[in-house]
Amino acid sequence: MRILFGCHLRRTGATSLSESNQKKPVLLKADERLDLLKKENIQIIQSPSVFSFSLDAVLLANFASVPKTRQAKIVDFCSGNGAVAFLLTGKTKNPIIGVEIQDRLIDMARRTVQLNELEERVSFVHADINNITDHIPADSVDVISCNPPYFKDIPSSTKNTHSAYTIARHEVKLNLDQLMKKTSHLLKMNGKAYFVHRPDRLLEILDTMRANRLAPKRLQFIYPKTNKDANMILIEAIKDGKPDGLKILPPFYVHDETGDYSTEVKAILFGE
Amino acid sequence: MRILFGCHLRRTGATSLSESNQKKPVLLKADERLDLLKKENIQIIQSPSVFSFSLDAVLLANFASVPKTRQAKIVDFCSGNGAVAFLLTGKTKNPIIGVEIQDRLIDMARRTVQLNELEERVSFVHADINNITDHIPADSVDVISCNPPYFKDIPSSTKNTHSAYTIARHEVKLNLDQLMKKTSHLLKMNGKAYFVHRPDRLLEILDTMRANRLAPKRLQFIYPKTNKDANMILIEAIKDGKPDGLKILPPFYVHDETGDYSTEVKAILFGE
Repeated sequence: MRILFGCHLRRTGATSLSESNQKKPVLLKADERLDLLKKENIQIIQSPSVFSFSLDAVLLANFASVPKTRQAKIVDFCSGNGAVAFLLTGKTKNPIIGVEIQDRLIDMARRTVQLNELEERVSFVHADINNITDHIPADSVDVISCNPPYFKDIPSSTKNTHSAYTIARHEVKLNLDQLMKKTSHLLKMNGKAYFVHRPDRLLEILDTMRANRLAPKRLQFIYPKTNKDANMILIEAIKDGKPDGLKILPPFYVHDETGDYSTEVKAILFGE
Repeated sequence: MRILFGCHLRRTGATSLSESNQKKPVLLKADERLDLLKKENIQIIQSPSVFSFSLDAVLLANFASVPKTRQAKIVDFCSGNGAVAFLLTGKTKNPIIGVEIQDRLIDMARRTVQLNELEERVSFVHADINNITDHIPADSVDVISCNPPYFKDIPSSTKNTHSAYTIARHEVKLNLDQLMKKTSHLLKMNGKAYFVHRPDRLLEILDTMRANRLAPKRLQFIYPKTNKDANMILIEAIKDGKPDGLKILPPFYVHDETGDYSTEVKAILFGE
């Protein structure tokens, strides 16, 4: 599975990588490995035991419209190991700021920056989104992308409270309303926000967006394959946009009839 | 185009039809014709100058779940010439009650009943939906279907106020909130409502449903063909249903790559 996101280069113990296929020596920790973002030619540090990005991040980065050359401030919320931020470098010359609350993930993301010598293009803020205006001024951002925790907070008895995956997946640190509030707070008027989420929460998403001055404008439903219900949604919203004129984009299929990735997914992943 | 909905039998002046292919003599008015609902074997009176049903009605009737044999009260709002009500006879043994405000359309629908000898299965109430509880008791209906006017009311200067098409297409007599209020009013608890509408009004539809105790449960987007935005939506709601668990059904395409009707549409129209 991982190999499909790129070329799985290395899974080692703590090692200073200095092979010729490495751009720059960088320390990989015990449970980490490097995957290649093929189209962007970026080696990204992942850890199966802590966090590794999924197709959701890839589809979000593909969906987001970012100015290619026109100067713009681009922020990626809930950045994890930085996958969306790194993927966006393929679409814009503007610098991208990732925001992540978990120190272990920020550390991975920053080492990916270092490894790929992307210091001028990608940076990370270690912060709780709820306090983001301590780091990034309100009304200053042109585009925000976010692959947020999908699941509602669950009773602490049934969750592994401190696991990195729990924080990334469940609304332990950031719920939908907080997310939309801070997205709206940071965006300039007519700034754009892009989210990937689950269809069963569509109504809440639309409600919390609109309660926070974010007008949903484009919706795309992602289907695992033909004749299946959608299992992912992509949403574009515009701060202070007009409330009408929602567009439903053509459906997007992840797999083809044979169970292989669809032509569309392969094009996004590999540029095929 | 019309022929695709069935076999266009006749377009005459005022004529008493008594040919052998007619089930029963019935008076057709000057601008009327008969179309065949092939799967249901029903000849339906239409009038291009007043009202003829479209694929929207066909997809709505196909989408609606109605108990086949279990006793249930089924009502079709904004019935027009009765197309949805007549199409539903193919899915249920229960009687269906159509409601329509326009006397000319009620008259056409009732003559279609007579022509096809469907008096035991389909009947029509000539009423404004806003006064529907004068005719059908509150909290008494199991299933409501509706192909409502799609467009917001427009300034009277720009609309042909009294045309039958204007009333059928624009919210002159019934807006979304009124529709959802009366749908909810008539339905039993856990009764189901089915609507066909336009994607650009999705947010208002979801809002007015929920403001009237109708929980959206299933959404299907209709695309004219691949790589085009959706141009129609089908929605199922349940009165007093739980607010979560919305499902997005597989996309439905109207046309195939050649511009012909898709296999799915042909199956619905002709049982092919």
